[in-house]
Amino acid sequence: MNFEEKTIEKESIYQGRIIDVEKHLVSLPNGETALREVVKHNGAVAVCAVTPEGKVILVKQFRKPLEHTLVEIPAGKLEPGEDRVSAAMRELEEETGYRARSLQHIGDVYGTPGFSNELISIYFTDDIEKGEMNLDEDEFVEPILYSLSDIENAVKNREINDAKTLIAFQHALLVYNHSK
Amino acid sequence: MNFEEKTIEKESIYQGRIIDVEKHLVSLPNGETALREVVKHNGAVAVCAVTPEGKVILVKQFRKPLEHTLVEIPAGKLEPGEDRVSAAMRELEEETGYRARSLQHIGDVYGTPGFSNELISIYFTDDIEKGEMNLDEDEFVEPILYSLSDIENAVKNREINDAKTLIAFQHALLVYNHSK
Repeated sequence: MNFEEKTIEKESIYQGRIIDVEKHLVSLPNGETALREVVKHNGAVAVCAVTPEGKVILVKQFRKPLEHTLVEIPAGKLEPGEDRVSAAMRELEEETGYRARSLQHIGDVYGTPGFSNELISIYFTDDIEKGEMNLDEDEFVEPILYSLSDIENAVKNREINDAKTLIAFQHALLVYNHSK
Repeated sequence: MNFEEKTIEKESIYQGRIIDVEKHLVSLPNGETALREVVKHNGAVAVCAVTPEGKVILVKQFRKPLEHTLVEIPAGKLEPGEDRVSAAMRELEEETGYRARSLQHIGDVYGTPGFSNELISIYFTDDIEKGEMNLDEDEFVEPILYSLSDIENAVKNREINDAKTLIAFQHALLVYNHSK
């Protein structure tokens, strides 16, 4: 079966700072047409970092689309031309003051593939050293440390409301359970 | 610390079929201002359903923002006023032809909190019966069945590129490992 939806007509709605918005008229596999709304984004990276004391470093920050704060693993947008591993190392150090000596790759996921192409690469590390914190000028974050039992409880009680953070926490629990 | 970013000025960029786009000029905690782009979405649901034969039901569909197909657990948008559990039951039956007698709640997560308020509720069920498939007229999906070892391999090999599906798979592996 050929699922492809070919663009017949495309309209640029908005070219912004972190997103571009397009409207596509597409032809469907059955010959009909449909409207598709597309939010383009350059991509992002996130890091689940474990300190020598066995604590995962999280950041609490205000997320304007939600109008409230969210607890997340450190994350950020790719700079133009930047590779994903370098971006992940940079974001971790900027937001937490810890530098990763190495990263393990958990996976690359689309958070909202129905309307956006944002691909987020998620990494894990317990190989970190002190570096230098350096937030963007419009960035305000508060670091929070979670123990493995905090993570276990947060997952069980469905308290994690961020997709990349839940993926990272479940990964940590799987790694922990497998090594028991 | 008060993280709130109050809107000083708001501009509506686009009011579409599944998304609305807004631009906010906000005041930051340090008194400066910044631009925030916000994609509003009504919310979504997804279901990881296990057949009596122990297989997870996935659907392969073309995702226009990615310009390729993606393998995902069945999911869909909330209808206006619809509660999340009913929406999850409806989407599962429409896309797979299976009806859930009950659902367990895995969690509610934001897929891209940096620019969108889309909240996706993820459920798990192994309590299903035959129902009636009924796709939307612009929806083309192909069902695929994964065994638990397919899931284990897909997670290990980082082959799952959809956030909600990776969360559901990791959940299944955690449940399975805990019950061993």
